[in-house]
Amino acid sequence: MTPTPLYLDCDTGIDDALALAYLLASPSAELVGIGSVSGNVSAAVGAVNTLDLLALAGRPDIPVAVGAHDPLVRAFDGGAPHVHGANGIGGVVLPTSGTAQMDETAAEMLVRLANEYPGELKVVAIGPLTNIAHALRLEPRLPELVAGITLMGGAAMVPGNITPVAEANIANDPEAAREVLAAPWNVTMVPLDVTMANVLEEEHRLELLASENPVARALGEMLGYYYRFYEGIFGRACSAMHDPLAAAVALDAVALRTAPVVHAEVDAGNGPGRGQTVCDLRGMHVGYPEQPGAHCRVVLELEQDFAPHLMDVLLGRVPAAIGARNS
Amino acid sequence: MTPTPLYLDCDTGIDDALALAYLLASPSAELVGIGSVSGNVSAAVGAVNTLDLLALAGRPDIPVAVGAHDPLVRAFDGGAPHVHGANGIGGVVLPTSGTAQMDETAAEMLVRLANEYPGELKVVAIGPLTNIAHALRLEPRLPELVAGITLMGGAAMVPGNITPVAEANIANDPEAAREVLAAPWNVTMVPLDVTMANVLEEEHRLELLASENPVARALGEMLGYYYRFYEGIFGRACSAMHDPLAAAVALDAVALRTAPVVHAEVDAGNGPGRGQTVCDLRGMHVGYPEQPGAHCRVVLELEQDFAPHLMDVLLGRVPAAIGARNS
Repeated sequence: MTPTPLYLDCDTGIDDALALAYLLASPSAELVGIGSVSGNVSAAVGAVNTLDLLALAGRPDIPVAVGAHDPLVRAFDGGAPHVHGANGIGGVVLPTSGTAQMDETAAEMLVRLANEYPGELKVVAIGPLTNIAHALRLEPRLPELVAGITLMGGAAMVPGNITPVAEANIANDPEAAREVLAAPWNVTMVPLDVTMANVLEEEHRLELLASENPVARALGEMLGYYYRFYEGIFGRACSAMHDPLAAAVALDAVALRTAPVVHAEVDAGNGPGRGQTVCDLRGMHVGYPEQPGAHCRVVLELEQDFAPHLMDVLLGRVPAAIGARNS
Repeated sequence: MTPTPLYLDCDTGIDDALALAYLLASPSAELVGIGSVSGNVSAAVGAVNTLDLLALAGRPDIPVAVGAHDPLVRAFDGGAPHVHGANGIGGVVLPTSGTAQMDETAAEMLVRLANEYPGELKVVAIGPLTNIAHALRLEPRLPELVAGITLMGGAAMVPGNITPVAEANIANDPEAAREVLAAPWNVTMVPLDVTMANVLEEEHRLELLASENPVARALGEMLGYYYRFYEGIFGRACSAMHDPLAAAVALDAVALRTAPVVHAEVDAGNGPGRGQTVCDLRGMHVGYPEQPGAHCRVVLELEQDFAPHLMDVLLGRVPAAIGARNS
């Protein structure tokens, strides 16, 4: 099987680090490029974290481009140090990779890769969608050129995590998200509905810390910080698995129980709904009848808990997406 | 026990008729006035339906005032004949009451009653909130004068029924709903989250049709029409119980399993969220911690299915709100 070429857009970030480690462990995907964007941290810091993680994983060959510092219409708000730590990875100090970033921007890299792998490239976006919106503006044919986009973001029927209805990646750049959802491509949205329902527990963190794999150990250390934030949300030391779940969905590595294709748009106004992903789920009582013209698949529920699969992949017990669908 | 004086604001409407019949059967509440508002039907038609139902129930003494024809800023859209029938009560022809409507408007009636029963009057609003907003403008002290307001409306964590996020009563007059939720009184919101989860089935309709009570029989006939609409929603002949459930909640006649007091506001903008009730339910994983200043109780879940209680009351087997809480 030829691995699927994959462009990752991220704001690394603790759960971004988990997603990156997950993708690196998967032989079914080949990371051909990574772009950073401001979100959990600035695009510049996100690029450094990404490069350091790649070096630690022995993959300094994967190119990293720095993306947009500011959202489309507002200024970067400084990120979420209370969630991810001041350096974005929970205060964990990684060896400095020294690898150079690409000269091109993240949006330019995405457009270049889309042209290099026409019809094949999968886009996985786990930060604000600023770079993707810039890429759509640079290359309006992008939707035809790529195989599809999977994004971590939004909240369909559960509360948001920034406002009562807005999730962080969308809230950080609603205008960009609006453009990305409106573009004529197949979008798979992995919202809080499913990421908050799949949790890493303390036992998982301890297992990562006990690993001989330096990347797994670093992730375990980062999760110590991340868990402290989530203790206020869940009432115990644990964390949601936003970004790695989006990565696994992009690889078709997890079976989906409920994932209707529906009309979805982003509220980019200035009212209380700003940053909300408005998904038309009114068909929920009758199995979500087809909605002509809809092109956004909203992942609401998995068949099985995600944590065991994620741990298996991170600890090298199974490669991602190989037989995982029915594991 | 002295019955609680109650003002009902309605757009009668099949489920409004159920709510009215439910309240009339309750000795714990005394309907001291009813206002009509445009929603399911025009305010004028709603008033006629209400008067005819009151006459059929032997209660032509209860005064009915016609309320606002148009929402605060837009024009009445003609109602929902596909849901409630052209006459609002599923095409059922009731004997004409001939009772005169009050000279005052519904808003004037509400303000008058609030002053007549200071600190005692309960407001139950089961239509768009236009009249209530007008009353707040007429008498800014209304929030201190009444004992509280219970409204059927909104959608907190489930889809809307007019747009992906907006429920009909709120969507019909978002500006009014915004003012009502912002006013400094205790609001109890009974949204689609709980009304769509409590359903009347075909067996209940047949039981109503077999009753010797003419009001119960008329309700059974109306439900035949209502069920046809809901067949598209639920995939079987049945219906949600929006308005009677709000009436029962107002009477404290049903036990609530989940009903947090949270910040809530209405999106009255012109984006995709227009008409949404934005409720801050982010504390859901830790039992909804107190939100200082919040004054909206959002009813999300009952302890028990509502249908048996409603049927008992409508068929005169038990009076509403007498021992029902723990039935």
